[in-house]
Amino acid sequence: MLSISKRGHEMPASPIRKLVPYAEAAKKRGTKVYHLNIGQPDIETPESCLDAVRNANLKVLAYSHSAGNESYRKKLVQYYAKNNIEVTENEIIVTTGGSEAILFGFMACLDVGDEVIVPEPFYANYNGFAIMADVSVVPIASKIETGFALPPIEDFEKAITPKTKAIVVCNPNNPTGYLYSAAEMETLKEIMIRHNLFLFADEAYREFCYEGKHTSAMHLKGAEQHVVLMDTISKRYSACGGRIGAFVTKNTEVLDAAMKFAQARLSPPYYAQLLGEAAVDLPDNYFDDTKAEYKLRRDTIVKRLNAIPGVFCPNPGGAFYAMASLPIDDCDRFCQWLLESFSHEGATVMLAPATGFYSTAGSGTNEVRLAYVLNVDAINKAMDCLEKALEVYPGRI
Amino acid sequence: MLSISKRGHEMPASPIRKLVPYAEAAKKRGTKVYHLNIGQPDIETPESCLDAVRNANLKVLAYSHSAGNESYRKKLVQYYAKNNIEVTENEIIVTTGGSEAILFGFMACLDVGDEVIVPEPFYANYNGFAIMADVSVVPIASKIETGFALPPIEDFEKAITPKTKAIVVCNPNNPTGYLYSAAEMETLKEIMIRHNLFLFADEAYREFCYEGKHTSAMHLKGAEQHVVLMDTISKRYSACGGRIGAFVTKNTEVLDAAMKFAQARLSPPYYAQLLGEAAVDLPDNYFDDTKAEYKLRRDTIVKRLNAIPGVFCPNPGGAFYAMASLPIDDCDRFCQWLLESFSHEGATVMLAPATGFYSTAGSGTNEVRLAYVLNVDAINKAMDCLEKALEVYPGRI
Repeated sequence: MLSISKRGHEMPASPIRKLVPYAEAAKKRGTKVYHLNIGQPDIETPESCLDAVRNANLKVLAYSHSAGNESYRKKLVQYYAKNNIEVTENEIIVTTGGSEAILFGFMACLDVGDEVIVPEPFYANYNGFAIMADVSVVPIASKIETGFALPPIEDFEKAITPKTKAIVVCNPNNPTGYLYSAAEMETLKEIMIRHNLFLFADEAYREFCYEGKHTSAMHLKGAEQHVVLMDTISKRYSACGGRIGAFVTKNTEVLDAAMKFAQARLSPPYYAQLLGEAAVDLPDNYFDDTKAEYKLRRDTIVKRLNAIPGVFCPNPGGAFYAMASLPIDDCDRFCQWLLESFSHEGATVMLAPATGFYSTAGSGTNEVRLAYVLNVDAINKAMDCLEKALEVYPGRI
Repeated sequence: MLSISKRGHEMPASPIRKLVPYAEAAKKRGTKVYHLNIGQPDIETPESCLDAVRNANLKVLAYSHSAGNESYRKKLVQYYAKNNIEVTENEIIVTTGGSEAILFGFMACLDVGDEVIVPEPFYANYNGFAIMADVSVVPIASKIETGFALPPIEDFEKAITPKTKAIVVCNPNNPTGYLYSAAEMETLKEIMIRHNLFLFADEAYREFCYEGKHTSAMHLKGAEQHVVLMDTISKRYSACGGRIGAFVTKNTEVLDAAMKFAQARLSPPYYAQLLGEAAVDLPDNYFDDTKAEYKLRRDTIVKRLNAIPGVFCPNPGGAFYAMASLPIDDCDRFCQWLLESFSHEGATVMLAPATGFYSTAGSGTNEVRLAYVLNVDAINKAMDCLEKALEVYPGRI
């Protein structure tokens, strides 16, 4: 028998996408589905960025430099400087989305059997890249009661083994929306220096902070050799389809290794580099409107959620996600039921079951993630649905 | 000490790019460099394809489907049908270049420690993807004397071990330009069925065949479950920078596994999918001019090479590469010397040392690869340089 690989078997299917057939069936029945399940922003991509692609004047769509166009990397230097991150164009590799930056980090720093610690719940695709790299994700629990704050330092200490090579931190966090404080980032610095670990910093949502300031892992003085920034323009400029990210580090050995992986895949996509380059020239107040809009949505969804009996939603400080605990037996069953067996005024709501974000079995079974990527009116209607649904759901507890 | 991964260390630097600093220095000295070293075509990207991107009417640059836009996959079905390859849109995953199709194939079918057999010389980046997947490339020699024909079946039999899981074939071949015959493809089919192996078929240069017809691995009757096609639009439409390829197989288990890897990286680049979709509507005679141009270049370069004393270049049947043996001590030293210490009428030529395409130490030391991606006039001037260079090169043997 011809058989696929073990990692092909073990690779998890996308937890967010497995409900899609139920959503499609609901729509075929004529039910309106409010999609709070995925992180696809509805914010328009800036016109000047789209224009940069429209006006591209080229005869041959050639490979770009494996590290990305030099002109774009020079622009990125300006972007990072505005965020108090001092890097040169030679410390940046333009990647195919943040996804490839994660893959390069795992490949350049970790070997088969190594362990990487991740506060749980976490972005489900870290699991996928870990399986590609044949390394183990070791989760340590953050709790909804604390709003998913950084787990105590003892929990890290307990999880560290001789095989531990890195910690992954997503800040602001997907799926929890939690914004790590400067003090928490200092704690991470302490741990990684004491135990000689890499810190993989996923800062895809850097611009979307509603309470307090963002502390980048690149701001941590004395940890420069430990930090690998995994960045993306996807959420920042609502340019998810462009597939442009960045791998940034001051560790030249890591950079050189990542560069070899970058050369093997030849180059990142050309067109969206033009888009990203134009984006750096957006006015400094560009994010003000977008942030105000997301904050309004966050305030709306958090208020509505906490007003429903038995529901608890901590106030997320950043990104555009909220996690809520519900008075239900099982979030996977509930989310499927919402699509299969429920409607309110011809509509229902699609949520992401939190179990997909936990690797510890049995965790998060009464939690869901809500992406507030719809306008306030749609969010209110979606919350009407959720409120009614929880009144009649047979598995309510 | 914080240390990078073993695979980060082992990952080979691009053999083609390591001479770049010498070429840059030559240009700074005012020397014209004829680039026959890389597979970046000079053919213009079709205007209708560039227009498809220019005229994209979108407000939000959203993720596409993880398998690629359905409309594009449906177009690809038409494209493959024209090439007598019968597939459905659900048997195609649009990838980020052919590179990602190779990575998905390795990840979906091979585990750590598995072996994959590749006729040597071969596309150097297979090594890189093998290191990412932690599998071993087992080379079997093809010879310049036979024009790099498929090695005899006994050589495959000898190389097969219990760990062998797949064979990689690039047809027409990069770096040799060899076009495998229908009979050779049948031999491969026999081997893979007898030993229960996958066949990874890299057909990036399908359109560029000058002698005889192309036999796709997808044409092999009875081998449908074994074949994984790794395709790309890069060379076909001179669209290398778009980063659009395809992973195609009739093996649903492999397809499902690859799909999970595709979901983990969310989606392929959006813009160049529009370009690829428009390309399928190019007139059927679109390739005639391009092929005629490449054939003329091939005829020119092969004739010029074989007219130089001590040089042998078999006539390549496809792609846009030729391999030649030269009367030299060491191709790496020679190619560097061409850039560092030689010029003829203010010009020199940049070639790819063949050693980068061999994984068997000591093989190919007197061979170079020439990509005929320049017009006939430039090729003639480059050959003038090479002819003169071989007269004065101190390491001539």
